[in-house]
Amino acid sequence: MDQPVLTLSEEAGRVAARVDELFDKLLTPPGDRRDRLFKAMAHAAIGGGKRMRPLLTVAAARLFGIDEKRAIRVGTAIEAIHVYSLIHDDLPCMDDDDLRRGKPATHKRFDEATAVLAGDSLHDLAFEILSDPATHERPAVRLELIAALAQASGPAGMAGGQMMDLAAEGEALDLGAITRLQQLKTGALIEYSVEAACIMARLPEDRRTPYRGYARNVGLAFQIADDLIDHSGDEERAGKRVGKDADAGKATFVSLLGEERARAQANMLVEQAGEHLKGHGEEADLLRAIARFAVERDR
Amino acid sequence: MDQPVLTLSEEAGRVAARVDELFDKLLTPPGDRRDRLFKAMAHAAIGGGKRMRPLLTVAAARLFGIDEKRAIRVGTAIEAIHVYSLIHDDLPCMDDDDLRRGKPATHKRFDEATAVLAGDSLHDLAFEILSDPATHERPAVRLELIAALAQASGPAGMAGGQMMDLAAEGEALDLGAITRLQQLKTGALIEYSVEAACIMARLPEDRRTPYRGYARNVGLAFQIADDLIDHSGDEERAGKRVGKDADAGKATFVSLLGEERARAQANMLVEQAGEHLKGHGEEADLLRAIARFAVERDR
Repeated sequence: MDQPVLTLSEEAGRVAARVDELFDKLLTPPGDRRDRLFKAMAHAAIGGGKRMRPLLTVAAARLFGIDEKRAIRVGTAIEAIHVYSLIHDDLPCMDDDDLRRGKPATHKRFDEATAVLAGDSLHDLAFEILSDPATHERPAVRLELIAALAQASGPAGMAGGQMMDLAAEGEALDLGAITRLQQLKTGALIEYSVEAACIMARLPEDRRTPYRGYARNVGLAFQIADDLIDHSGDEERAGKRVGKDADAGKATFVSLLGEERARAQANMLVEQAGEHLKGHGEEADLLRAIARFAVERDR
Repeated sequence: MDQPVLTLSEEAGRVAARVDELFDKLLTPPGDRRDRLFKAMAHAAIGGGKRMRPLLTVAAARLFGIDEKRAIRVGTAIEAIHVYSLIHDDLPCMDDDDLRRGKPATHKRFDEATAVLAGDSLHDLAFEILSDPATHERPAVRLELIAALAQASGPAGMAGGQMMDLAAEGEALDLGAITRLQQLKTGALIEYSVEAACIMARLPEDRRTPYRGYARNVGLAFQIADDLIDHSGDEERAGKRVGKDADAGKATFVSLLGEERARAQANMLVEQAGEHLKGHGEEADLLRAIARFAVERDR
């Protein structure tokens, strides 16, 4: 690697800027009555969030020597799915949140109908990005990226996890049920972020196991950290409402394990994530740093 | 053609049954807390509607000798997009309709949050169906189907048209603006239904012109007929609320042209649609019958 060594926050800032740049290019208002839709999409998608998913894709792509421009395209598609799910999640009929990434939620800044359409349109945008030859020259690779993303975001993945979450309201879920729910709700898209790099590298199935293990551990650690932030976090720093799981009487990793054991569990998952990378040298340092960040963050 | 000659309603019934069958297979509840999501998707997707879009794909595929099983898969993907848009459209923050296809709207039969997720999940299902090798053996063809569908359903197509419709509330749109709006809102997906057959047949660009002309004419005729039904239709027969455009003070083809001229315009469009097919013999009879049906229907 003859790249200069950057810190995690420098890498994250660089990736975030490139994702913003691509969103900005793709979301140019057409200059007609659709402008409001494009502005709502841009409001939600540009200039916010940790961009952890695109960062994971870039970091995993680095293991296999994949052109970063392609990893940024795939990461932006993943972020489009993530952002669409946040827009719909924040709607009054879902979690009813007014604040997202330190800004008014899309339905507050615009209106509910525009927010529904902006989410739907970012959903399409993700598949549009992946189907473009600029993402990968091989049609079979683009197709595999698309098929796996539809799985990760749909009823077998993220949307399925959200349904489990809704259906469980008022029920006392145990640790196994919470783990399963979160593996779908947040884990599926985080796992896809790493899997996408394996797909672009055309890695055979049997060589993907360690990367899947890494992603699964990071996804779960990330969610436990989220529960800890929701439990004891600072709303201003988090950029979103906190304490809402407790208010809703929802079981979380923290309510089930207690704060101390939850934190210990998250740290153990990060250690296990590192174990999966032991066959790699410094080219995996960014993935290692992301795993630590997943639990050490405060927002 | 050594197939028996069927009437339009026999063909439509046959296609509807095959679309239902595929939805039914794809929407088997997994037997956990996601079951409610799968049931909501099935409620909206199975056993209703005219299935005009899948019928168009099957009819156009027949021109090129494409295996009907593939046309049904593509038509089911298109219908998944259509149904997702109906679910979201019916939400209280959008058109606020309680009745759809003669049944309670998804948010009435289930709840709003489940309806949002069911729409989102049908959106993913469409891309999942298209990315499957059973849809077409060539990855490049599946990719082209996917890219064109993301265009037709996203901000450059259906969702963009819906935004135009929302943004135009209270504004006096003229005939040009209404035509442009409807070409996106309902036209884009109807045009895709025919384009998809051209893609599967690997027709070069310059040979697609007549089929695009046919689809554009049918799409517009279909929309004028919709406005006529909304203007003077029977709610019970239509299976949805009627008179709502007038109630909302929205300009429509009927409010701008009057009933008589709107009907004449629709009939002229059907004639023009037929002109585009004049290079074909009886293999295009189903397309011709669909064009007539688009304006002669009462629901």
